[in-house]
Amino acid sequence: MPAGSGIAWELGAGTRLRVVDVEGGQTGDVFAVAADNPADGLSNGRTFDYGDSVHLSTGSVLYSRRSRPLLRIVADDAGHHDFLYAPCSQEMYEIGYGVTDAHPNCLDNLTSSLATFGVPAATVTIAFNVFMRVDIAPDGRLTVLPPTVRAGQAVTFVAERDVVVAVTACPAAKANGGRVRALGVEISAG
Amino acid sequence: MPAGSGIAWELGAGTRLRVVDVEGGQTGDVFAVAADNPADGLSNGRTFDYGDSVHLSTGSVLYSRRSRPLLRIVADDAGHHDFLYAPCSQEMYEIGYGVTDAHPNCLDNLTSSLATFGVPAATVTIAFNVFMRVDIAPDGRLTVLPPTVRAGQAVTFVAERDVVVAVTACPAAKANGGRVRALGVEISAG
Repeated sequence: MPAGSGIAWELGAGTRLRVVDVEGGQTGDVFAVAADNPADGLSNGRTFDYGDSVHLSTGSVLYSRRSRPLLRIVADDAGHHDFLYAPCSQEMYEIGYGVTDAHPNCLDNLTSSLATFGVPAATVTIAFNVFMRVDIAPDGRLTVLPPTVRAGQAVTFVAERDVVVAVTACPAAKANGGRVRALGVEISAG
Repeated sequence: MPAGSGIAWELGAGTRLRVVDVEGGQTGDVFAVAADNPADGLSNGRTFDYGDSVHLSTGSVLYSRRSRPLLRIVADDAGHHDFLYAPCSQEMYEIGYGVTDAHPNCLDNLTSSLATFGVPAATVTIAFNVFMRVDIAPDGRLTVLPPTVRAGQAVTFVAERDVVVAVTACPAAKANGGRVRALGVEISAG
């Protein structure tokens, strides 16, 4: 998947989705929705409700708003991902970086790729930020750190039910150590 | 506001909303949406994007999905609130507590009270959990602790624009030290 782009796929239950950092140091966003209900998308709050942790890695289940398992992490070379920050958006580039022109962004990439499968934009409120490294200080302060994921490292999800899933290669320089790269995606039967 | 219930109001920009813990030890959920766009509701991810902290107290701004300030905390006796966990829902009581009958829950209270103002249920993905005390361990593990908020303590928000806001008194025993109580709400001009 080229830098700054987004693609969506329908995955049957048990299908594996492997997101590979091809060059190293690149983050991405993953969003999923239950195939039988385009309003029942990924929820960070529900995932925290049932997993009781903000640290998600191998074994973690990502839940939907209606408390249904959508994806499970079954392998993870990186060990650090983020589920706190919202996907970067046009407004975020305007407010955070003073951008005035249209800027590629994860929110538009996710919503436009999912729209082709009938998923309304209102469903996409948050995304799972693969390879994004965020430190939480004891006082709650968040710091985005450059990713330490290396070329060839990957995170693998299995679909816990029929889902539509979108992946983007994040175009935010800040979360990617200053340079935006491609991500690889491999889809395989379980 | 009685234990386990929810109410919504339209608040003009500058209006103050004070949520009071009448008896002590009770948590609640607050959700807001921009009056000019019923899809532009509160977002924990956007709030973290701009505030770079999961600890929200006096001075913190609560942002919408479209990156617009909705509420600002202007006074806070409690000093601990949660914006990680999703509002309790029927599914949560079924999965987490083995409940089989209908159980009062914050998600239904928020969505039904907001529906009377034309806010679609899809907008309510998350809520700001006032007085809820959550410990984040260095490894990311979350622990819900009994609230330490005392009778008469309050948190005060000011509306940063015209909003519709809903407040519930949470009916989850776990988050409330085992007993569910009422909350007080005071609305006043800025």
